Amino acid sequence: MAQPGSTPRTELKRIAHKASHSQQELYRVLDSNLVAHVGIIFDGYPLVIPMAYGRVGDTLYLHGSSGSRLMRALSHNPAVCISITKLNALKVARSTFNSGMNYDAAVIFGEAKLVPDDKKAWALDAISDAILPGRMDEVRPSSKKEAAATLIIQVELNETSVKISNGAVEDEPEDLGTGVWAGLIPIRTVVGEPIPADDETAQLELPQSVKRFISDYPDKRLRSS
Amino acid sequence: MAQPGSTPRTELKRIAHKASHSQQELYRVLDSNLVAHVGIIFDGYPLVIPMAYGRVGDTLYLHGSSGSRLMRALSHNPAVCISITKLNALKVARSTFNSGMNYDAAVIFGEAKLVPDDKKAWALDAISDAILPGRMDEVRPSSKKEAAATLIIQVELNETSVKISNGAVEDEPEDLGTGVWAGLIPIRTVVGEPIPADDETAQLELPQSVKRFISDYPDKRLRSS
Repeated sequence: MAQPGSTPRTELKRIAHKASHSQQELYRVLDSNLVAHVGIIFDGYPLVIPMAYGRVGDTLYLHGSSGSRLMRALSHNPAVCISITKLNALKVARSTFNSGMNYDAAVIFGEAKLVPDDKKAWALDAISDAILPGRMDEVRPSSKKEAAATLIIQVELNETSVKISNGAVEDEPEDLGTGVWAGLIPIRTVVGEPIPADDETAQLELPQSVKRFISDYPDKRLRSS
Repeated sequence: MAQPGSTPRTELKRIAHKASHSQQELYRVLDSNLVAHVGIIFDGYPLVIPMAYGRVGDTLYLHGSSGSRLMRALSHNPAVCISITKLNALKVARSTFNSGMNYDAAVIFGEAKLVPDDKKAWALDAISDAILPGRMDEVRPSSKKEAAATLIIQVELNETSVKISNGAVEDEPEDLGTGVWAGLIPIRTVVGEPIPADDETAQLELPQSVKRFISDYPDKRLRSS
């Protein structure tokens, strides 16, 4: 039975047990990562570009400089596929065939729309706030000139899939008891000590946004909407 | 002037100072990461899928299960764009406009070729050895049945670009001295304590490959070729 957000394109037939269309899982993957790989068709060829993004409700906002070819290409062909992946462990089995990786992966299909000029400053702030929540309260608003130099696209989250691969190592019966080690090697992303930009900022206390980012990481934002 | 590996597609005009076509940098980015985002055209739409990979010389081998739609799609349209990105820091400026990210990014354009049956077992081992160097010496060879259940593609590294963004925070002159903190928040991937798969492996010493992976991480392999 179809679940919300699922379409024939998002069906993961071969690995259905890994597929989850749960909105909460999708939100969690989006809100705990920072880089999306955005695929488009450019001059007839596939092109994949890493981009920063922010989610607000069921809309993803992505951001690049106004001259970038991705942004220009999308104005001709708005179809995008956005992939957000977090590797969590190497799965080391007793055979290479059964070895693999545990990961969270979200895939979003959609049409990219340019955010209109009158909504751009708001969207720019929304992306910033998604990456470093609370930062907007600490800095000046973006100027009109800055907003004009930025293109922002938005993609609706209505055709999505989430795959959470977190299984244990599974070996062939004949490989057990052969004296070969097997197990998981966890891989985590962590935040290091912030490095002040200059002498001035070295004198300042860390702002709330940065403190919170460090304590909450990798959850960029803890919210339910 | 054109550099080796550069084509019009790989020229990064707007951010030329970040572009590097150095082979060493390309190798470093490929050999210190584990997941590639592979973009193809599937039924006329862009599709981006995360895949494991291994580099041998100037060839990238990528691997998925033989039934996956990516693999089947590539037999019809072999054009791929492979993007490998590592986020190294959030760049927190005194304005959102000047904020951004520091990262390593490699992009590879090419045509995916299916690795022929008689080379498959070798390529499977090569990928395994690239992800966890030395592991091949510790496990049994892949069986013919296992090789048959796997499709491996190869892409030549002859149209590539590498972008290393590692700049300091740069603020507008009018934003300096306003009491707003600015700096870098480093982000690193680290390896956790290995988790044995079961009672049997809990009794075994960690194998050399896993020990070396942990001590060398994030460099999967330290090699010059």
